[in-house]
Amino acid sequence: MPGNSFGQIFRITTFGESHGPAIGVVIDGFPAGMELDLGFVQKELDRRRPGQSAIVTQRQEADRVELLSGVFDGKTTGMPLALLIRNEDAKSKDYSHIADKYRPSHADFTYQAKYGFRDYRGGGRSSARETAARVAAGAVAKQFLATKGINITAWVSRVGEITLDKSYEELDFSNIEATPVRCPELVVAEQMEHLIREVRKAGDTIGGIVSCVVQGCPSGLGEPVFDRLHADLGKAMLSINACKGFEIGSGFAGVTMRGSQHNDLFFTDENGQVRTRTNHSGGVQGGISNGMDIPFRVAFKPVATIVQIQESVNEAGEAVQVEGKGRHDPCVLPRAVPIVEAMAALVLADHFLRNQK
Amino acid sequence: MPGNSFGQIFRITTFGESHGPAIGVVIDGFPAGMELDLGFVQKELDRRRPGQSAIVTQRQEADRVELLSGVFDGKTTGMPLALLIRNEDAKSKDYSHIADKYRPSHADFTYQAKYGFRDYRGGGRSSARETAARVAAGAVAKQFLATKGINITAWVSRVGEITLDKSYEELDFSNIEATPVRCPELVVAEQMEHLIREVRKAGDTIGGIVSCVVQGCPSGLGEPVFDRLHADLGKAMLSINACKGFEIGSGFAGVTMRGSQHNDLFFTDENGQVRTRTNHSGGVQGGISNGMDIPFRVAFKPVATIVQIQESVNEAGEAVQVEGKGRHDPCVLPRAVPIVEAMAALVLADHFLRNQK
Amino acid sequence: MPGNSFGQIFRITTFGESHGPAIGVVIDGFPAGMELDLGFVQKELDRRRPGQSAIVTQRQEADRVELLSGVFDGKTTGMPLALLIRNEDAKSKDYSHIADKYRPSHADFTYQAKYGFRDYRGGGRSSARETAARVAAGAVAKQFLATKGINITAWVSRVGEITLDKSYEELDFSNIEATPVRCPELVVAEQMEHLIREVRKAGDTIGGIVSCVVQGCPSGLGEPVFDRLHADLGKAMLSINACKGFEIGSGFAGVTMRGSQHNDLFFTDENGQVRTRTNHSGGVQGGISNGMDIPFRVAFKPVATIVQIQESVNEAGEAVQVEGKGRHDPCVLPRAVPIVEAMAALVLADHFLRNQK
Amino acid sequence: MPGNSFGQIFRITTFGESHGPAIGVVIDGFPAGMELDLGFVQKELDRRRPGQSAIVTQRQEADRVELLSGVFDGKTTGMPLALLIRNEDAKSKDYSHIADKYRPSHADFTYQAKYGFRDYRGGGRSSARETAARVAAGAVAKQFLATKGINITAWVSRVGEITLDKSYEELDFSNIEATPVRCPELVVAEQMEHLIREVRKAGDTIGGIVSCVVQGCPSGLGEPVFDRLHADLGKAMLSINACKGFEIGSGFAGVTMRGSQHNDLFFTDENGQVRTRTNHSGGVQGGISNGMDIPFRVAFKPVATIVQIQESVNEAGEAVQVEGKGRHDPCVLPRAVPIVEAMAALVLADHFLRNQK
Repeated sequence: MPGNSFGQIFRITTFGESHGPAIGVVIDGFPAGMELDLGFVQKELDRRRPGQSAIVTQRQEADRVELLSGVFDGKTTGMPLALLIRNEDAKSKDYSHIADKYRPSHADFTYQAKYGFRDYRGGGRSSARETAARVAAGAVAKQFLATKGINITAWVSRVGEITLDKSYEELDFSNIEATPVRCPELVVAEQMEHLIREVRKAGDTIGGIVSCVVQGCPSGLGEPVFDRLHADLGKAMLSINACKGFEIGSGFAGVTMRGSQHNDLFFTDENGQVRTRTNHSGGVQGGISNGMDIPFRVAFKPVATIVQIQESVNEAGEAVQVEGKGRHDPCVLPRAVPIVEAMAALVLADHFLRNQK
Repeated sequence: MPGNSFGQIFRITTFGESHGPAIGVVIDGFPAGMELDLGFVQKELDRRRPGQSAIVTQRQEADRVELLSGVFDGKTTGMPLALLIRNEDAKSKDYSHIADKYRPSHADFTYQAKYGFRDYRGGGRSSARETAARVAAGAVAKQFLATKGINITAWVSRVGEITLDKSYEELDFSNIEATPVRCPELVVAEQMEHLIREVRKAGDTIGGIVSCVVQGCPSGLGEPVFDRLHADLGKAMLSINACKGFEIGSGFAGVTMRGSQHNDLFFTDENGQVRTRTNHSGGVQGGISNGMDIPFRVAFKPVATIVQIQESVNEAGEAVQVEGKGRHDPCVLPRAVPIVEAMAALVLADHFLRNQK
Repeated sequence: MPGNSFGQIFRITTFGESHGPAIGVVIDGFPAGMELDLGFVQKELDRRRPGQSAIVTQRQEADRVELLSGVFDGKTTGMPLALLIRNEDAKSKDYSHIADKYRPSHADFTYQAKYGFRDYRGGGRSSARETAARVAAGAVAKQFLATKGINITAWVSRVGEITLDKSYEELDFSNIEATPVRCPELVVAEQMEHLIREVRKAGDTIGGIVSCVVQGCPSGLGEPVFDRLHADLGKAMLSINACKGFEIGSGFAGVTMRGSQHNDLFFTDENGQVRTRTNHSGGVQGGISNGMDIPFRVAFKPVATIVQIQESVNEAGEAVQVEGKGRHDPCVLPRAVPIVEAMAALVLADHFLRNQK
Repeated sequence: MPGNSFGQIFRITTFGESHGPAIGVVIDGFPAGMELDLGFVQKELDRRRPGQSAIVTQRQEADRVELLSGVFDGKTTGMPLALLIRNEDAKSKDYSHIADKYRPSHADFTYQAKYGFRDYRGGGRSSARETAARVAAGAVAKQFLATKGINITAWVSRVGEITLDKSYEELDFSNIEATPVRCPELVVAEQMEHLIREVRKAGDTIGGIVSCVVQGCPSGLGEPVFDRLHADLGKAMLSINACKGFEIGSGFAGVTMRGSQHNDLFFTDENGQVRTRTNHSGGVQGGISNGMDIPFRVAFKPVATIVQIQESVNEAGEAVQVEGKGRHDPCVLPRAVPIVEAMAALVLADHFLRNQK
């Protein structure tokens, strides 16, 4: 049963494989009459694009986005927005050496087990290339959210052992794009970059954490009892390649707190706005936003493609060796930043529209 | 827009408030011709039931389940199964003292903000009472999964600072139900119980972690690209009251690993089955189950109801004090165990049926 | 895959069999803060109830509705509304004589073919008893629509050969409930009633047409391109037992018209409202309501239960005779009137909420 | 709320406007490992294409279809199939003369009312051009159904007053494509063609009926209680531009029959197959297919675009005249044939996959 759509009212459907003719997305449910800046979509795609710095994969993709529908005279019509990105690097490689082998910790085996047949070129649809369509859709969602005063900011807060320990309130977000690693604390960023270069040299990969905060979110977003705002955020993040964990607010650290510490006491601020003194809840209570910031963290394992020889099996179940000849992305974290933001934007836009009465 | 349904093919819809006449669930999509053991549903409800031990809340509920439809001559007909649980404790208390106050870290404020009106009796629908309907539905899902050889086991692996550090493979699951705290390592269980009693005496609450493992799951469950098996598991867990985090396989700890360590190498076992030597992936690769065990962990914050006076505001935004007069559950973890299992069962049953071709 | 839910935002899920303990419905998505009149729900159920007149089936059901959730202090909370109706007549009959026989034009054969197992008592879920849940939900939808000025009126416009030929604008709707046959033209009603009595005496059944008009509907309801307002109306009607046809506006008669006759010319009325001079479109253009009345017609075949001996086969495929011992409803039309209204109300309420921005 | 998707398991999402860069469709849920003949998709598009004969609209569109994803080595991968059709005729016309006028019986007014903004070029998304995406998707569905032995055949059975009165069993379907009007009875076809030419000369349009039969459908397709097979067929047909009515089996004519005539008696045929002696039910009982043929009829009103001057209003509500300068399709019926087949194929494929256990 299909699983290539996301969202209920602001609903996207993506398509395309790593080495097919194109990838793309249809966005259904975008409100009519809003200006759409395609340049911004392109800019977000450029943030995700391979080859943008020395520490990410060097696949050659311009990722030029084309809008096929849904806009007239510069404004959305309420009809589906279709965005298309042609694959340019699609035919440049021979993948026959892995045609019948299962690369460790890739989706080769599970796709074969599920479908009995798979597009083995660069992972086909299981390739992270698919996330370009998400970023394009997320850039559209971001534009909608911006008109509502909602902003989403993500950054790399950990690479391997190197951790950015500061609270997001102490960070200068304008530094995020200043370094290739997308960590706003420049000293830490340098350490991260150094580590990634080392890992790369070893033909290896390394994981990390992307932190994110939604700011300016009004109260009322999220639906009882299953479609809670943070449940949908969690699903969105866990649907990104290589994601292995999600936490919001106090998260896993909160388990050692007492209720008397963890409870966020309400008060009325100088503007008559009800707020909480602490934010262990992460801006969500009972699954519904309470108007405070929504900070969350996303754990990424090291990506599976390494430039080393690994033991595995082929489709016949025979022991084989898999050589790491693919393009090699030592650390997915910097490029995961716009993807995390995009998925968060899709969830927020959907729940914003679901909350309309 | 409604959010009270969960699942696509094995689809549940729950209803009911803490202090209304009843709670219940409609299960649509259960296959026809299967025997249904209502006694097992009752047994699972008893595991979640308040008042079952000294360390959980003492609300008085028999939680007797009644089957209203979908079974004939002891077998399912493929029609919706409706399960009803009357609330018995519903009218025993006066809630007027919190009618216009926002209890800290409860959903009082957010429900008021979203709906402009709320059922304040015991939290209404935001009460954890709602999870009884999930447990009933999960007990039905478990029976379906059992016929497919799929088992789900959860246990308390952490309460506050007290941690059960062993891998699940070293545990004796038959001990889980032997202690009120539902930790299978008896020495650790005793420490946890001791801590909970202390916390209780202080009128406070404490959080923790529930660990869970799905065993016997065939390969092929989960759908590219958004409805990944672990993404739906994550959403399911994050939709449980007080849940703040989810991780699968290596989870947050995996971020320090190198790809060469993290990759799970394939081999063919003595039965001709393709397996992996390690299981950092947590039994899911590319969002699809690979036939290995699926271990995950769920973080719960301390519950919000404490027996202490707290600062807050009322609906007029005025500063007020909230007294903790409600029944007090010092630690939700023991009762969260059957809820985690139930939600996992719902996800697995749904994806099992989605994978049918 | 389940099919027991209807609607996207105003979404109902029904359950229950003809001879099980109860039938019922969960309504998810009803807005918060509205008064709900349960007495009106009961009144609508009474309109559908068996035994209300000599020309309908004499099954003995009080059809008392109980509200289980979603209302507090007389107002809706935005949470699911669950409505329960106990079956009282459930155990009064022995159905073993049809346990393995397929009654002609019933769903016995198709349910057996699909599910390999079926509840043969009174047709189980395929019985028209299921429509009581729809009428209950529709009565809730009607109350919502009434607050928006939208009214839905249905009546019997044909029984067998006897036809009410007037346009709805010439009818006095206050007469609809004045006759057991629910035809507002009293002379025609009498003829219809006479025919039904004759058919009944012969142990036979007769079909007919229910006409319906939605009045007060604002423009803008309906969604391009598949979820057109009239497409959803059509599906709603065709999902009612015994329905074989649906037409809106000019319908089948419109096929002989020229475009120059059929086109509804726009003009601005004295209130500055854009209207059309004719309404061949049936109030829907491009799938979206245009503010005019929405008239449609629904064809019902004669119901299958007759008091005659019929040739058939049993589960083994052997030729058998089926005796008509069931309670006998000579003409479903009078009781179909509230069902048609209910389904129309569900479609309108759903599209009204879908149109909110 | 979006409405551009159709189907649950075999699910399509369409996009594109009459005069935008392209139209297209994403098909999610097509099973893996099947051969896909893109040539057949093109052939079906050619059947719908404008300009194919003298009696249809002369818009110039080659309608070349491009496959963007979901196929590898000639076989489907289970991933979304995206099909793209560039608009070639898009910029050839000036639509400013109708920019602020409402063309009678078009969707100009309702789109404006709903969205406050519209793409007025050729009707934008409300144009029948959108159905090309449906035909492309339907051609994919047909290929799936063909592997299951299910065939769908539609033909024109009425144009204005000229009616083909024979039962489908008496027709020679191989004649359907032999005449531009797609009526398999050549004498009647000629009369229809003659009428269409006359109507065309008058700058007018004419409606009619498309008949269709699904053959080879196994029993068991369709879901109780809302998603009945014929209810979804009805919705599918009513979602086609200009459709005003749908009937299945005995349809509107069945209302004059007695139950004893209408009931389809079961018997076991020489192959041990349970069948019915008559087929007034139209192959569907209780909403589920019974293995007999599924015949239905679809009423189309005359299309709204005529080459005559008509009274109307503009966006300011002022009286204006609308000139019929658009390309003029005197009778949509011949081109509706492949569209009806396509929508039926989408419903059948979806329900076939929904019925898998």
